[in-house]
Amino acid sequence: MQTRIEVGILGATGMVGQHFIRFLQGHPWFHLSWLGASDRSAGKKYQDAMVWHSAGTVPDSVKEMVVEECKPGNAPKLVFSAMDAGVATDIERAFAEAGHIVVSNSKNHRMEHDVPLLVPEVNADHLKLVPQQNSRGWKGQIVTNPNCSTIGLVMALGAMKQFGIAKVIVTTMQAISGAGYPGVASMDIVGNVIPFIGGEEEKMQVETQKILGEFAGDHIEPLAAKVSAHCNRVAVVDGHTETVSVEFTAKPTLADLRHAIDSFRGLPQKRKLPSAPAQPVIYMEETNRPQPRKDAERERGMAAFVGRLRTCPVLDNKFVVLSHNTIRGAAGAAVLNAELMHSEGMLG
Amino acid sequence: MQTRIEVGILGATGMVGQHFIRFLQGHPWFHLSWLGASDRSAGKKYQDAMVWHSAGTVPDSVKEMVVEECKPGNAPKLVFSAMDAGVATDIERAFAEAGHIVVSNSKNHRMEHDVPLLVPEVNADHLKLVPQQNSRGWKGQIVTNPNCSTIGLVMALGAMKQFGIAKVIVTTMQAISGAGYPGVASMDIVGNVIPFIGGEEEKMQVETQKILGEFAGDHIEPLAAKVSAHCNRVAVVDGHTETVSVEFTAKPTLADLRHAIDSFRGLPQKRKLPSAPAQPVIYMEETNRPQPRKDAERERGMAAFVGRLRTCPVLDNKFVVLSHNTIRGAAGAAVLNAELMHSEGMLG
Amino acid sequence: MQTRIEVGILGATGMVGQHFIRFLQGHPWFHLSWLGASDRSAGKKYQDAMVWHSAGTVPDSVKEMVVEECKPGNAPKLVFSAMDAGVATDIERAFAEAGHIVVSNSKNHRMEHDVPLLVPEVNADHLKLVPQQNSRGWKGQIVTNPNCSTIGLVMALGAMKQFGIAKVIVTTMQAISGAGYPGVASMDIVGNVIPFIGGEEEKMQVETQKILGEFAGDHIEPLAAKVSAHCNRVAVVDGHTETVSVEFTAKPTLADLRHAIDSFRGLPQKRKLPSAPAQPVIYMEETNRPQPRKDAERERGMAAFVGRLRTCPVLDNKFVVLSHNTIRGAAGAAVLNAELMHSEGMLG
Amino acid sequence: MQTRIEVGILGATGMVGQHFIRFLQGHPWFHLSWLGASDRSAGKKYQDAMVWHSAGTVPDSVKEMVVEECKPGNAPKLVFSAMDAGVATDIERAFAEAGHIVVSNSKNHRMEHDVPLLVPEVNADHLKLVPQQNSRGWKGQIVTNPNCSTIGLVMALGAMKQFGIAKVIVTTMQAISGAGYPGVASMDIVGNVIPFIGGEEEKMQVETQKILGEFAGDHIEPLAAKVSAHCNRVAVVDGHTETVSVEFTAKPTLADLRHAIDSFRGLPQKRKLPSAPAQPVIYMEETNRPQPRKDAERERGMAAFVGRLRTCPVLDNKFVVLSHNTIRGAAGAAVLNAELMHSEGMLG
Repeated sequence: MQTRIEVGILGATGMVGQHFIRFLQGHPWFHLSWLGASDRSAGKKYQDAMVWHSAGTVPDSVKEMVVEECKPGNAPKLVFSAMDAGVATDIERAFAEAGHIVVSNSKNHRMEHDVPLLVPEVNADHLKLVPQQNSRGWKGQIVTNPNCSTIGLVMALGAMKQFGIAKVIVTTMQAISGAGYPGVASMDIVGNVIPFIGGEEEKMQVETQKILGEFAGDHIEPLAAKVSAHCNRVAVVDGHTETVSVEFTAKPTLADLRHAIDSFRGLPQKRKLPSAPAQPVIYMEETNRPQPRKDAERERGMAAFVGRLRTCPVLDNKFVVLSHNTIRGAAGAAVLNAELMHSEGMLG
Repeated sequence: MQTRIEVGILGATGMVGQHFIRFLQGHPWFHLSWLGASDRSAGKKYQDAMVWHSAGTVPDSVKEMVVEECKPGNAPKLVFSAMDAGVATDIERAFAEAGHIVVSNSKNHRMEHDVPLLVPEVNADHLKLVPQQNSRGWKGQIVTNPNCSTIGLVMALGAMKQFGIAKVIVTTMQAISGAGYPGVASMDIVGNVIPFIGGEEEKMQVETQKILGEFAGDHIEPLAAKVSAHCNRVAVVDGHTETVSVEFTAKPTLADLRHAIDSFRGLPQKRKLPSAPAQPVIYMEETNRPQPRKDAERERGMAAFVGRLRTCPVLDNKFVVLSHNTIRGAAGAAVLNAELMHSEGMLG
Repeated sequence: MQTRIEVGILGATGMVGQHFIRFLQGHPWFHLSWLGASDRSAGKKYQDAMVWHSAGTVPDSVKEMVVEECKPGNAPKLVFSAMDAGVATDIERAFAEAGHIVVSNSKNHRMEHDVPLLVPEVNADHLKLVPQQNSRGWKGQIVTNPNCSTIGLVMALGAMKQFGIAKVIVTTMQAISGAGYPGVASMDIVGNVIPFIGGEEEKMQVETQKILGEFAGDHIEPLAAKVSAHCNRVAVVDGHTETVSVEFTAKPTLADLRHAIDSFRGLPQKRKLPSAPAQPVIYMEETNRPQPRKDAERERGMAAFVGRLRTCPVLDNKFVVLSHNTIRGAAGAAVLNAELMHSEGMLG
Repeated sequence: MQTRIEVGILGATGMVGQHFIRFLQGHPWFHLSWLGASDRSAGKKYQDAMVWHSAGTVPDSVKEMVVEECKPGNAPKLVFSAMDAGVATDIERAFAEAGHIVVSNSKNHRMEHDVPLLVPEVNADHLKLVPQQNSRGWKGQIVTNPNCSTIGLVMALGAMKQFGIAKVIVTTMQAISGAGYPGVASMDIVGNVIPFIGGEEEKMQVETQKILGEFAGDHIEPLAAKVSAHCNRVAVVDGHTETVSVEFTAKPTLADLRHAIDSFRGLPQKRKLPSAPAQPVIYMEETNRPQPRKDAERERGMAAFVGRLRTCPVLDNKFVVLSHNTIRGAAGAAVLNAELMHSEGMLG
């Protein structure tokens, strides 16, 4: 085995940080060697600095690692950011200024004009934005992945983009793990639905337009499609399920759409990136699938699952899409972004 | 107290039958005096003929009642039908032929041209269809209520009908009680979403068009709106939550729509029918409501709750609606239908 | 209607405070006229001082009431305490010193030698402890009710106490509402069991011994029985289910125990106190009952339900008991305590 | 790789059969080459003969296999039985008579005097019963594994058996997957507890005594301990959690018990059987563990997890134990039994 690239995690003690730790276990290219967290945790062994909320127990490989403050310096060049939105803006910028490559899951820089909101199968060319970050005086860079509710939608739509997306209405049924820890109070969700997630609908709408937009020299020209999201929380642990109605300008048949899904492949597949699913969007024939508890973890949680493609009386086409919110919608997305960057020679 | 009207239940031992029994407890106009079920149950005391699946235990007033076969004869003139779709067509028709007034929750006759699909606040005038049933040679009649997923949608849209409904996309998150007993297997729904309910989407689409349609002399002219439904099952006990995007021809403001909701009243309210909610559609200001576990049982389960009315980038307007599927979506709906008919002098 | 007694609530904005508000709606003896909470809430209208987490919405009667600080002075003589354990000790004592009758649901004073831990059907005579509180220099007094996991156990055992309780092993499956709000994180309990609740087992053990103990002139002589509790949290909203194995010195038959349950009545029943269930412990014959979602709310949540009484190979007898944790295990328990005190002429 | 041993599954289309199929995927010793099911399924391709209820989708390796009737003949010598209790007695006997080695998960033959109820770490020597089956005129044999609720208890108690088990009281909180498909109705378990599982308590009691008993020449002398079980169903997908109070004759300290757990190893560990967990009983130090959703799947679902070992006021010691009901409690248990038999040279 070649020498692996050292990587760190900003915000390693939180729930998203824990997902990064799990996802990086045994990674063939990346070696987790640095954990950053708040001042409160700095100086402690990882196992003493957090409560492990993921399944199982904290991996042996990180138990004894000493957590450091989230300041550039000792951290490796490549850092994954799992920081809370409340602190991510400044810290990520500080790392970028100092020459780090920040591959972030945080929402803070996603919509900035010179920051790629990257889904490697869909818009790998958005990486061309990165050089513009130089004009900020940064020696490093920031690349982001979408919100956990956006990812399934844009993977499915990405497969069908050629038909000209005009209008999209999506309703999500989102898992509780998307809200972190302690996140959603059990009194609010056991036997219940919460028909609201703060800021989520706006994120889905603008992120979808940016991700499916075109690189236009010095910015991304957002997709002109109208996108409307209804976001709900349901009592599911992992996996966001979404119902989608979509109108295309090219008026494809259902068979056209199905063919587009089945044949969709991107750079991660062509380059066989370590975390790439063999097929990014998998169609399920069963009438009642995909389902989060049964399907989200398939393909290591890195694929989107589509089912029930059928005619919509209003917008011509409708379907269901499912993706794993803490893997393809968070840690796995960021790691795949870094893998793509490495395959482009961008990790130096 | 005046003499109450004797009523019976067709299909009294099933889950919907049990909901009728609960809802009729203490009814001021109707006295439950007859229980019909399958041959297998006939001749047994009610408490020996079924397993009580509703909350609490079987009411004392029906425990000792002897279940009869579902044949006209001993049954009172007014019968509520809680029959399974597999047998309802013939049995309901036999009762109607024999002179009974069949107020049915079953789907079988809902879409027939001479059968009202009645929501008293929305289309009370559809009762004018009833006389046409004479031409079938029936001495009695059949009146139906909508499917449990349709009712919340049509109550909300009914309040806004004046603005000209053009396009509707609805996604449901339906409670498990809507599937009867044993209904949904726990292995399919605990910690899960099932993005499919057989036949439900079609029912929602055509029922909505009929209910919101106009009485046209000898038939109902369906609403010309396009309606598209995505139906899902979630791990909620009672209460169907629905996200709705809707386009109106008159382009009302959100304030217009809100005013229409708040001021919406129908015949049941004007006549103060016993099961009528004071206000049929109740708007909730809280950003994260309505919620099924917290709201469905308010107003005795007879109101629809709307929240989150806001702009939809695709169809101009969107909102959330909740209604209680086994009350306003089944037993309570049928009882309210019978109350309306009584107030019209139709129960003779 | 006679003039009702004015009552207040200490800790009115928390979840237990909300349960008190709900339970006191329409109470025939007590009129809720005062709400106390933390400094942060004082001066605000109740509806602005809290988020309503119970079912439905905040009752109209308290919406506009202005919350006051938890200091004696303006509060009525009788106050119910729903305070967090972190602050209850000093505040309850201050109220008692100042002449208030504090009927508390908090754990803080439960185990003090001169404070009754009262279950009116079981140990009404423990009220005789109250006069000893004079020696503290208090003009008022404090009376407490048990922890929500203790109440079902002691009601069931109370009915059988005559047979000489020797050994008890109980395992609880406790509802999430017992932990307040936000309480249990959904990530910890959806599709899961948490086999630990901090401090709960110790409380169940010592409270059971005190409640079932005897008034001995100036203190309670605890029941000599050995009690062992295993406490677990499960994904149930309301209602604690408990499996109990119990050995009696008098070696009763199962029929003896069943008779004792069925015939058990206490002072609340004899005096027909407003919140008293007609029968405090109700035996269910069904093989698979009681169940929390189906039974906890029966009898307004004030009864304990026992089922599956059968032989235990180790401790002779075993059974299941269920009670509603936020009603009979909290607000309803305290109100019943106050009703008993009123019937004893103790409310002045 | 050596030639693997051909194996078949009796009852391959049911839920337990599906668990066997999953567990046998990639097994280093056993190659699944034969699927038996009811007449109704015989002759169909596996994928057409069942609905896959486990996570994910049916493995490619069995999709096209043609299901056969459950009759000896074409089946390989070694068959795993996943048959329903209603038909297992006769079919398993027919296979044993015909010379097959039947490694069964069904309850039917578990308590017969000449049939081992095998837990390889605990009572490997019970395999010595097998030769007695010759006297039935069988050319083959039957070996069984315990009920899913028994396995965790006996693994934990097996580790401590040396201290002389005298009395055991156990309360289970069992997952819904233990009831097969459709199994538990969602209306019975969502937000609920069912304090009864038919026949389960009796099975736990007698199976525990047999498993922990001693081979006595021609039969098993059951453990003389008194065992009492309370069995409950909770809304958990996989993993049975159990609270246990246990009295030992040797009065060990908690440290003695802990040491016994940590050092416990059996033949499967010594021989490094493919499905053996490295350590059969794993102690968790966290105060609130083990938990089914977080721990049951660790160690491939083959270990038992113990936590909260502490003093019991009644029976001296208490703890919590968790095990995976469909793996270590069903398919994995049977496969480990076959592996042990192979290591003993019993598979011929």
